[in-house]
Amino acid sequence: MRGSEASVQPIGLNARGVWAPALTALHEDLSIDEQRVVEHVEWLLSHGCHGVVLFGTTGEGTSFSVEERMRALEAVLTGGADPERLMIGTGCCALSDTVRLTAHAAANGCRKVLVLPPFYYKGVSDDGLYRSYAEVIERVGDAELKLFFYHFPRQSATPISETLIERLVAGFGDSIAGVKDSSGDWSNTQSLIRRFPRLAIFPGSETLQLDALEIGGAGCISASANVNVAGIRRVYDEWEDGAPQAESAQQQATAVRAAIEAYPLCPALKAIVAHYRADPGWSLVRPPLQPLNAAAARELVANLERLDFGMSI
Amino acid sequence: MRGSEASVQPIGLNARGVWAPALTALHEDLSIDEQRVVEHVEWLLSHGCHGVVLFGTTGEGTSFSVEERMRALEAVLTGGADPERLMIGTGCCALSDTVRLTAHAAANGCRKVLVLPPFYYKGVSDDGLYRSYAEVIERVGDAELKLFFYHFPRQSATPISETLIERLVAGFGDSIAGVKDSSGDWSNTQSLIRRFPRLAIFPGSETLQLDALEIGGAGCISASANVNVAGIRRVYDEWEDGAPQAESAQQQATAVRAAIEAYPLCPALKAIVAHYRADPGWSLVRPPLQPLNAAAARELVANLERLDFGMSI
Repeated sequence: MRGSEASVQPIGLNARGVWAPALTALHEDLSIDEQRVVEHVEWLLSHGCHGVVLFGTTGEGTSFSVEERMRALEAVLTGGADPERLMIGTGCCALSDTVRLTAHAAANGCRKVLVLPPFYYKGVSDDGLYRSYAEVIERVGDAELKLFFYHFPRQSATPISETLIERLVAGFGDSIAGVKDSSGDWSNTQSLIRRFPRLAIFPGSETLQLDALEIGGAGCISASANVNVAGIRRVYDEWEDGAPQAESAQQQATAVRAAIEAYPLCPALKAIVAHYRADPGWSLVRPPLQPLNAAAARELVANLERLDFGMSI
Repeated sequence: MRGSEASVQPIGLNARGVWAPALTALHEDLSIDEQRVVEHVEWLLSHGCHGVVLFGTTGEGTSFSVEERMRALEAVLTGGADPERLMIGTGCCALSDTVRLTAHAAANGCRKVLVLPPFYYKGVSDDGLYRSYAEVIERVGDAELKLFFYHFPRQSATPISETLIERLVAGFGDSIAGVKDSSGDWSNTQSLIRRFPRLAIFPGSETLQLDALEIGGAGCISASANVNVAGIRRVYDEWEDGAPQAESAQQQATAVRAAIEAYPLCPALKAIVAHYRADPGWSLVRPPLQPLNAAAARELVANLERLDFGMSI
């Protein structure tokens, strides 16, 4: 899987590489600032991201209505983003919402969707989750759909088991494209990569990127790519080139990640963007998240600069 | 608090007594069967419920879109239900959804709203939850709003602390009306009743109704009131009359509850309604819930009949 064996061009319907779950910029009234979202997605795609996820956890996806999410995607596409380099978070608690968002994404050429399980009821059965995903795929009815499971048990409290994935692969074949594994548990990521060689398995943090790539993982979908895309991309490129510097690049990226995640992740990332773009409005988050306070933001930036981190704006 | 000291007529802006979180009937295609919802709400209100909650956990509230929920409420009101005897579940993950549902309910005369905290992000701060509730109250801007906190840590994984309630009471006074405490933890219910004598504290199960009434609780909001409203109401009435039979009525209601909750609660209740109304369509649930299978449904009904339970259709 090293070097020239792996190809990321064109991205097409499959996905590999470094993907950023884009932060969602807000106006003072907490509505989505579509213009700044468009600019940030453009910035990510032109600064090293192979692709961008809209409305993941870092993008506060569940904090916005279906209409807000659809309008923002339309703005990003109108802004010129290539739909093949986008993956859209569409998993909601309400089946009707998930179907509507998924159908809207697909109708706009975004066939890659990252789908949380319905996450209100806890302890639901695999049969119930199977039916949830099956209904979405069947109701959307798009033969080109590429569904990525969003496994994030710490937030959703609704894990996606390998048995469930296997059943859905058996039922829906090529519509099942991959997993974002945000468990943070390497043994889980490893097991997914080994059990599902046809699927694109993305660890949900760059800290596991090199380990994952070495055994056939797809890259990473990582929150911190919003600010450290250069550092995270370097790991991918060095690995692809078979260069020994991949290890040291990984160590540097992991150190930056550790500095960021000493704070609540999404507010910390928004504070970093606000600092480097000299744009305080970027620090706004929707409740129940809270913005980083000024002292914490200063401390975070100072910690990053001690690691020679700088965000090219 | 016994006997004539407690009055339930008129219900008005406050709430007491036995409230059922109504089951939401579905068509075969899993859309809401508004006609059967209207009929069920009428049945509950005319068979002993002091009031009805729409779109609580038992009503699969989070499994429906904002539009589906608004249309169903409108149908219930068009059907003739008294808005003062309704409480509307409006808490979503997206602030914009919670505001829209709450404003819609209030604009339709339903000032009592049962509000889950945003429940996707886990481990959020009380400051973040304060801001979530404050934004809803301020954006809806209805001086007559009566907000009931929905504390259901087993499903939401986002508990509502007494400190948070205290801060919101300090900030919003009469807009804060009560708590549905679905923790199932008597010490929590007891503590809420003692600490907030001005609020209506409803245990989320009838098993705690008599204990709660004895120390100043408001009654109960209980899933099983969908099928056993007569038995649960008897506890309330006997207590109100100061009758010694309150205890035995409570024991009987508790036994019925135990028989039901040996199965997943919402599917079990729908199976019971389907059986006694001879209307198999009533057993449908939205995924991720799964309907009770036929054998389990038969067993459940047999268990209930051994307790002399019968549902007057």
